[in-house]
Amino acid sequence: MNWGILLSTAKPEHRTERDIIESTIQHTKSAERWGFDSAWVLEHHFTPYAISPDTLSLAGFLLGATSRLRVGTAVLVAPFLHPVQIAESTAMLDQLSNGRFYLGLGRGICPEDFEVFGVDATKSHQLTRESTDLIIKAWTQEKVRGEGLYTFPEVSVVPKPRTTPHPPIYTAAESGSSVEWAARNGFPLLMQLGQDDQELAARVELYNEFAEEAGHDPDSIDHVVMCIGHIGESREAAKAEVFGMLEWWGDESSRIGFDVDQLKRLPNYRYHLNRVEQWVLQGKDTATVINEWLDNSPVGTPEQCVERLEGIIANIGVRHVVLGLEAVGNREATERNIERFAVEVFPKVGNEASSG
Amino acid sequence: MNWGILLSTAKPEHRTERDIIESTIQHTKSAERWGFDSAWVLEHHFTPYAISPDTLSLAGFLLGATSRLRVGTAVLVAPFLHPVQIAESTAMLDQLSNGRFYLGLGRGICPEDFEVFGVDATKSHQLTRESTDLIIKAWTQEKVRGEGLYTFPEVSVVPKPRTTPHPPIYTAAESGSSVEWAARNGFPLLMQLGQDDQELAARVELYNEFAEEAGHDPDSIDHVVMCIGHIGESREAAKAEVFGMLEWWGDESSRIGFDVDQLKRLPNYRYHLNRVEQWVLQGKDTATVINEWLDNSPVGTPEQCVERLEGIIANIGVRHVVLGLEAVGNREATERNIERFAVEVFPKVGNEASSG
Repeated sequence: MNWGILLSTAKPEHRTERDIIESTIQHTKSAERWGFDSAWVLEHHFTPYAISPDTLSLAGFLLGATSRLRVGTAVLVAPFLHPVQIAESTAMLDQLSNGRFYLGLGRGICPEDFEVFGVDATKSHQLTRESTDLIIKAWTQEKVRGEGLYTFPEVSVVPKPRTTPHPPIYTAAESGSSVEWAARNGFPLLMQLGQDDQELAARVELYNEFAEEAGHDPDSIDHVVMCIGHIGESREAAKAEVFGMLEWWGDESSRIGFDVDQLKRLPNYRYHLNRVEQWVLQGKDTATVINEWLDNSPVGTPEQCVERLEGIIANIGVRHVVLGLEAVGNREATERNIERFAVEVFPKVGNEASSG
Repeated sequence: MNWGILLSTAKPEHRTERDIIESTIQHTKSAERWGFDSAWVLEHHFTPYAISPDTLSLAGFLLGATSRLRVGTAVLVAPFLHPVQIAESTAMLDQLSNGRFYLGLGRGICPEDFEVFGVDATKSHQLTRESTDLIIKAWTQEKVRGEGLYTFPEVSVVPKPRTTPHPPIYTAAESGSSVEWAARNGFPLLMQLGQDDQELAARVELYNEFAEEAGHDPDSIDHVVMCIGHIGESREAAKAEVFGMLEWWGDESSRIGFDVDQLKRLPNYRYHLNRVEQWVLQGKDTATVINEWLDNSPVGTPEQCVERLEGIIANIGVRHVVLGLEAVGNREATERNIERFAVEVFPKVGNEASSG
């Protein structure tokens, strides 16, 4: 198993930016010390949902401050940077960290970001695919040129990555067509756990079908499941401790993302639109959604967390789980989660003795 | 006095990218250990002149790997990133490093870069000024909007920098009008030492005039002079050791920069054009230029380096000197330079006993 930590950089009203940034550094170092394998950073702009607008400088700093931990982007929004710049920066991070950098790519889901950076949201799908293709060419070929949405003369990008054939690329693909694209290219999925395991299980199954067809061994793909984790005295106590922060986080997430009307006007956001519509149609209030979500997450006593993680791993078929351990909203609680998951949960997952 | 190290990331044919990157990390840590105050990284694309295409991720990594040293960009090419992205990333680095980040900004001098990134070189001057203004607004104001070459709706950039009023901005201003602009804004100059001290002395004098007029105390401005430094058995021996590498570096620099014909077609590059034309008109061969340049640099015995540095400081009127210590072209020689300058040179500069 590979265990990761999601560095949320969420800044609720009662915390300062300084506290969030210092906490992020501290949690990263603690995660490395407690044997976590990976840490993942977000890209968000203009919102306290995550005060992390640049995954590359943040990943750079965290890689410099650690020596074994891998650091990934979950995700870097491809359309907001030139593909040559992404290739250059990530090759640099791969070199600097001796291969400890994971590049997770996505297309963006917040309308304000597209407006500010002057990127056409209707093209985000195609921009992301072209960009991914160009990044790999820039990394692996002596020369690369852009002849599509990105048009630029032939250049030789330096430095090249240290990792061969190239640093791993992860994607947040969700729709059928995006999953097919990821599978044919062998890019592992970055998945967010929802209210049940079935959606992600179906996604991985679809992926494996296409991956096999393209000649990739499905068992060799390092899919990642991301979920909230929190240890408490009981499931109810643990849920109660994280509820308020998650409610705020969910509201802020809805506020900044595309709304239903916007999504209807955008091509290739059908999957995302369906999900947003479902939430509305189901008519569930936020509290019910969060409750069901927490019931499906490793939240509770250490034993309950072990059991839930074993369920996730078995149902979805993954060996890399990344935990968001900051949902109480204070530094000490997160530090306790890091230590307790490392000591009381991870060693028992997949260990038969624990399920007896 | 503040002493800095310039991290060239130059990759001559006989060295690997891995060696250059590992050396860069090692030199940075050594510089911190030996008491240097600052380290400076370059931005160059598609050239072994410097395999450092992204100052922000590189600065991030080096800040993460150090605890006291300041890291600056010399320079980040402003027109190649959106000003909001520059503000976001640099506020992040300022927060992560607790105020150890210096933002040096420039406009770019390599035609290939402008072509690839799709930026109009004829606008680089105006883009850089607008960008600088927007970066400061994004850092210091609750909201910022773009209404010129950069047009974007009002947004609230997060995180804000930790440093107040904001992280220091340095500029590579050279022409009279750019020096005036820098001086009126109180941005210190990043200057490259040439074949004599007079050019930079005149530049600082002009700066001080405008700075005073704008109400800045000239003595409070942290101007930086960058130059080659190398310690050897004698001046001639030291010069001979660095000559080959500098010759290659100069040739590569000429190859990648705008040529005379290109400069003639670009507005606001008059100063740069004049200099390039002078080199051509003087008809000096590269060897002569490098020789004169080295004679004006702290290159020689420790005593000669002390004397030359005292001259530079007195003539130009600066208290921050950044040394390029990699001109022999191998890691061990640079490590020796770091240690010897720290032990045998820096403590004696400005110390009357040494000049006796």
